[in-house]
Amino acid sequence: MKLYDMELSGNCYKIRLFCALLGLQYQSVAVDLTLGEHKQPAFLQLNPRGQVPVLDDGGTIVWDSLAILTYLARKYGNEPWLPLAAEPLARVMQWLALSENELLYGLARARAVQKFKRPWDLSQCQALGKQGLAVLERRLSGRQWLADDHPTLADIACYPYVALSSEGDIALDDYPHVCAWLSRIQALPGYIGMPGI
Amino acid sequence: MKLYDMELSGNCYKIRLFCALLGLQYQSVAVDLTLGEHKQPAFLQLNPRGQVPVLDDGGTIVWDSLAILTYLARKYGNEPWLPLAAEPLARVMQWLALSENELLYGLARARAVQKFKRPWDLSQCQALGKQGLAVLERRLSGRQWLADDHPTLADIACYPYVALSSEGDIALDDYPHVCAWLSRIQALPGYIGMPGI
Repeated sequence: MKLYDMELSGNCYKIRLFCALLGLQYQSVAVDLTLGEHKQPAFLQLNPRGQVPVLDDGGTIVWDSLAILTYLARKYGNEPWLPLAAEPLARVMQWLALSENELLYGLARARAVQKFKRPWDLSQCQALGKQGLAVLERRLSGRQWLADDHPTLADIACYPYVALSSEGDIALDDYPHVCAWLSRIQALPGYIGMPGI
Repeated sequence: MKLYDMELSGNCYKIRLFCALLGLQYQSVAVDLTLGEHKQPAFLQLNPRGQVPVLDDGGTIVWDSLAILTYLARKYGNEPWLPLAAEPLARVMQWLALSENELLYGLARARAVQKFKRPWDLSQCQALGKQGLAVLERRLSGRQWLADDHPTLADIACYPYVALSSEGDIALDDYPHVCAWLSRIQALPGYIGMPGI
């Protein structure tokens, strides 16, 4: 299994973290975004969006962190990570959606403005990110995990950009239940971190 | 079944369209966003994000269009709409992810700037939306549906904001395969439209 990867990408880290928790081995192929490798024809053949991460599992190509997480959960994980019944699946999907919205276009974009000089409006991104954190805080007061009574893909997808909030100049002091949840994830067997966490 | 709904919301329309295709009956409860009903405590009890759509299926509350689509597919649909094997599920998820990214933060935001005077950078939103359209155009050249050889949730989730592109001042003339795909969706038995489409 080959992961087209970038060390500082939170979306790539979602995959590295989930692989570590599942005990999956893979070969990491570093894609140099500063050289524009992700916009070259060879890479666009793998992923027409020109983004990392991309997974190559024996010739099966999957792009997008959300799609790769669900692929790995179905192929190598077990049902607790991604339940299939309508209601628990919908619970997981709610938080996957939050990870793609408030967290990605809020927290991750704020970080990208500060860390990679991207051109987005910092205060708009921070405001959206804080809306997401407030929803997480409310959800996690009185419960351990986002979607179920055990960790699921929801926790894996939401974790990285929350844990990296400070790199977008967003402090987590006002979100104690979120902080406790971060610690619970960090205590999972097999957990690995990334630069900035 | 009750759908907290807003006529001009493309995300609500995703649910109305999928219900129509499945032949599902529901009661539509209009939420007046201009009066801020979605930010009132009673509504926030249903959805802590303060957004429509929200589904109430006999007391089971599901928020987020993506989560509602997967809930309906698993509970009332059949497996072709949302396949469960790792690889076909990942294919669907790839396009659901595109719908939450390039389409929502590109096409839908451009429309919201033009139609609802929202404060985002129009040209940034249009550029992101066009990236999404280019990926769809490439995917749909030579194939009928996004994720499989039949319609899936991927097509339902991507359809509304693509079909509403012109309201964000984005013309579809350069995307003939996308236009043909829109027509195929409009020809599905049970199809319904929305204002602007």
